[in-house]
Amino acid sequence: MVDTDLLRIAVEEAQAGLAEGGIPIGAALFDSDGTLLGRGHNRRVQDDDPAMHAETSAFRNAGRRANYRGTTMVTTLSPCWYCSGLVRQFGIGRVLVGEARTFQGGHDWLAEHGVEVTILDDPGCVAMMTEFIAARPQLWFEDIGK
Amino acid sequence: MVDTDLLRIAVEEAQAGLAEGGIPIGAALFDSDGTLLGRGHNRRVQDDDPAMHAETSAFRNAGRRANYRGTTMVTTLSPCWYCSGLVRQFGIGRVLVGEARTFQGGHDWLAEHGVEVTILDDPGCVAMMTEFIAARPQLWFEDIGK
Repeated sequence: MVDTDLLRIAVEEAQAGLAEGGIPIGAALFDSDGTLLGRGHNRRVQDDDPAMHAETSAFRNAGRRANYRGTTMVTTLSPCWYCSGLVRQFGIGRVLVGEARTFQGGHDWLAEHGVEVTILDDPGCVAMMTEFIAARPQLWFEDIGK
Repeated sequence: MVDTDLLRIAVEEAQAGLAEGGIPIGAALFDSDGTLLGRGHNRRVQDDDPAMHAETSAFRNAGRRANYRGTTMVTTLSPCWYCSGLVRQFGIGRVLVGEARTFQGGHDWLAEHGVEVTILDDPGCVAMMTEFIAARPQLWFEDIGK
């Protein structure tokens, strides 16, 4: 699968989260051969769970693994420090980011520490977050601890 | 409450995790006045959940909050990058660490970014992790992505 195919899964997750009244950020973890290991979206609103960001949700749904070397974390938005820390700690080899315009997380820090980072600058991802932040700023600030 | 009282709650959590057959790392989040907001322990084994480290569990159990400025995250072990990222992203003001001998996480990085870090170097915490790592090295390596 090409990068835009991988991103599509994360976007579907973000859209599902939005439809549930939640924060529209989605993610998915893939193996090196393109096998989907887990997918998920932010669940702050849905589960009243501040610990379930999109990336942590996809990571949880992938289940336990001995290592993550060849895996790719795909996310609609630049990963926050919490999710960047997840990537670094577990040695996830690559991060594919939908966009980093509406929020700048830790992707440069990950690249400095050997993670392959690709930013697609996808207009659909930018529009989704721009509209969400304008509509529900307090919820967004809560989710990033601002 | 003094620091050793705060640590005791995290140690109780770690011991509960060990008794359940899990990884003995515990944590608790306190407000500035010493009010316990949430407590928890690593749940990798118990819930088959690789995303539930001690700190993320305590954070989840504290529920949704608008900000974390005056809070203290107490943990029996130096926080890994994942949990250090949690602390940084949500602006948790202080981290109180039981020990950092058996594992060196991101506490220096947190201190560089303005988090108040205290390491108690508690012998009981060191012994608990030393014994656990010796008894179940594969499980420990899985939990830190090595």
